[in-house]
Amino acid sequence: MQAINIGILGLGTVGAGTATILQRNADEISRRLGCRLVVKVASVQDRNKARDCDCSGFEITENPHQVVSDPDVDIVVETIGGETLAKQLMLEAIANGKHIATANKALIALHGEEIFAAARDAGVAVYYEAAVAGGISIIKSLREGLAGNRVSLVAGIINGTGNFILSEMRDKGRTFADVLSEAQQLGYAEADPTFDVEGIDAAHKLTILASIAFGIPLQFDNVYTEGIGALSLTDVGYAEELGYRIKHLGIARVDERGVELRVHPTLIPQRRLIANVDGVMNAVLVKGDAVGNTLHYGAGAGAEPTGSAVVADLVDIARNIVANDAARIPAIAFQADQVKQLEIKPRGQFECAYYLRVEVNDVAGVMSQLSKVFAEREISLEAITQKEPAPGATAVSVIFITQRTQEEKIDSAIGDVETMSDVRGKVTRIRVEHLN
Amino acid sequence: MQAINIGILGLGTVGAGTATILQRNADEISRRLGCRLVVKVASVQDRNKARDCDCSGFEITENPHQVVSDPDVDIVVETIGGETLAKQLMLEAIANGKHIATANKALIALHGEEIFAAARDAGVAVYYEAAVAGGISIIKSLREGLAGNRVSLVAGIINGTGNFILSEMRDKGRTFADVLSEAQQLGYAEADPTFDVEGIDAAHKLTILASIAFGIPLQFDNVYTEGIGALSLTDVGYAEELGYRIKHLGIARVDERGVELRVHPTLIPQRRLIANVDGVMNAVLVKGDAVGNTLHYGAGAGAEPTGSAVVADLVDIARNIVANDAARIPAIAFQADQVKQLEIKPRGQFECAYYLRVEVNDVAGVMSQLSKVFAEREISLEAITQKEPAPGATAVSVIFITQRTQEEKIDSAIGDVETMSDVRGKVTRIRVEHLN
Repeated sequence: MQAINIGILGLGTVGAGTATILQRNADEISRRLGCRLVVKVASVQDRNKARDCDCSGFEITENPHQVVSDPDVDIVVETIGGETLAKQLMLEAIANGKHIATANKALIALHGEEIFAAARDAGVAVYYEAAVAGGISIIKSLREGLAGNRVSLVAGIINGTGNFILSEMRDKGRTFADVLSEAQQLGYAEADPTFDVEGIDAAHKLTILASIAFGIPLQFDNVYTEGIGALSLTDVGYAEELGYRIKHLGIARVDERGVELRVHPTLIPQRRLIANVDGVMNAVLVKGDAVGNTLHYGAGAGAEPTGSAVVADLVDIARNIVANDAARIPAIAFQADQVKQLEIKPRGQFECAYYLRVEVNDVAGVMSQLSKVFAEREISLEAITQKEPAPGATAVSVIFITQRTQEEKIDSAIGDVETMSDVRGKVTRIRVEHLN
Repeated sequence: MQAINIGILGLGTVGAGTATILQRNADEISRRLGCRLVVKVASVQDRNKARDCDCSGFEITENPHQVVSDPDVDIVVETIGGETLAKQLMLEAIANGKHIATANKALIALHGEEIFAAARDAGVAVYYEAAVAGGISIIKSLREGLAGNRVSLVAGIINGTGNFILSEMRDKGRTFADVLSEAQQLGYAEADPTFDVEGIDAAHKLTILASIAFGIPLQFDNVYTEGIGALSLTDVGYAEELGYRIKHLGIARVDERGVELRVHPTLIPQRRLIANVDGVMNAVLVKGDAVGNTLHYGAGAGAEPTGSAVVADLVDIARNIVANDAARIPAIAFQADQVKQLEIKPRGQFECAYYLRVEVNDVAGVMSQLSKVFAEREISLEAITQKEPAPGATAVSVIFITQRTQEEKIDSAIGDVETMSDVRGKVTRIRVEHLN
């Protein structure tokens, strides 16, 4: 039986998970593939460190350049992360005629165009299923399974750490800081949690999803990003009372006027499936003109779920090698010369519904002043709720949920509200998506 | 730009939906594919009947043999349904070197092996994404996206009509017969609803899913099937009270002792996502050893959702044509000579938890007699609830939810319970799956 040789860059979480699956499921994979996927060599930073996989069947090197230049290696798995060395190694591997499977979302989001162009020139494939939403085959679904559709919306819970934090806040009434600290101890969150909680990781992934959904260039810089660090338990609780749940969503939506690329905390009606995706799980909702709404749910991170995506790519690439057809599916789903830029909507032109919480003095006439602000801008309200003041307090919370409207109208309304003499402090704004 | 010509057998719901998508999204599809998919000819039973698609761009014939023998046709879309003529036409098309995309679940479930063998001999591809779960690309996910996994469980809501009926019963307290009659008026259910409500349609689909998940032959005759016609509102309500929801599931599960293939009404804890899949929507849960649980959700029927799956297959096949590689993905995911039969577990060896409702005379000592029946067989109980008798009634309902156990133990327990003098009538049994 033909063997296809794999070289792995990095045996951290994902690299070790990939090696484990390839070894444990070697026979099952060969049954599907008709040839064998064999790990030949892997590079590590320190060969004396303990590993989460059995390394007895392949060579270990501390020189990653050896992996990408090994003449026996057919496919390179890149799981070292980061942008600098990873990019250099990937381009080296491509120049040497190796195919690539990578889990590196930052690298694809920021340098994908350059890498894909090099791969086309060299006649090799770069696959990256593992870069978005771990074990969920959302790249494949968008590139292939939904290829007959004009996609208008991709909305996802695509950062497991952030979703874990929000789930814990809601379920257990714990504060953001408290849960984050636990997540770091459990190893869900990095020591520097910036990428997760500020939405940068989600924005990398959204960049990729939007590109393959709409056939637009990769453009991380155009993603509007808000993190979850400012979310209070107060708002989490009020959202619940109103029948919503708060999730940190990445949303890419297109209409005839352009595309919205955004990552921010979002209220979702509790009855939607995606509102019930808890803990470190991920889910991506895709709306196509033919298929309607589909939801793709699974583990968004972890050694073997992510390794599962890497191995699926290896199987696809191996099928291409056997068939001598590396270019069967274009790297970002559309033909390279058909990738077209669209207008990028600025934040003011986003359209959502909005949850607004205003702290006001408990005096007559305030509600009517507030309502007037919305009416003047033709912002319709879905709900208004006034919470009773705490004992001894003189301020009350007023919560508005608006109908869908343009964000610049909301900006303007908030501006006026915050100058009112009976309003205390800043207005809290959270976007609401009904996802239908 | 290269054109690939499509011939469509049948312009009913799915055929018309496919034609509509191919025409409306022609440019978007070409952007993805790099060539054009052109409908050249379609066959219909009566050329004078009104159509749900624009037929001005292609030839219409009342002779389906013309479609499968047209030398210009590259791919035949089979959407006429049924087993006899559809099979004959498909084999004719294959003999003529045409590739096939079909939505015909019964044909694949019952005659797939013969059709796939003919296709291998002729060097053409037979794709059937549309045969299972409409617009959800579950075939692709199992054949490709999860190719690195050893799959142990596939469990799905794979019949939209049945799920619509169950959702209405729960939400609105309507009887089975009442909802079925409405579903027929709405066109969700056929005039003869047997295939849907008795679970035959779901069993066809489960046959296909199990084959590609486990690499076993297609085997409809080995699927244990129970319909939803006997479900009462009483049980729907009690399930709710206990924190469960009743769904009509197709379940294929494998362990070292064999494979279970079954379709039956099933209680699922309300917090599971799949318990919240309502109306005509479908969802399939897949458990793989590497990826864990994934859920695949979308519209399970309808012209364009199903057409979306047909078009995805056309795109895949067209990529194969351009690359001259029809056999890139084996028809049932595993290589033909690697398909292996496993032991088929008889019903007595199924393992579930069970919901049992027993009507008993309201007299002392009955509960202890009932409990003894379970204890003797080492069947553990998760919950026991006794409902108050209706005013003036002398019988009360006792509801048991058991822990997981073998079905033959439950059969035996029910046998004993039904002979007890204070037990009235038959015991109601519904299986419970926690799907974890």
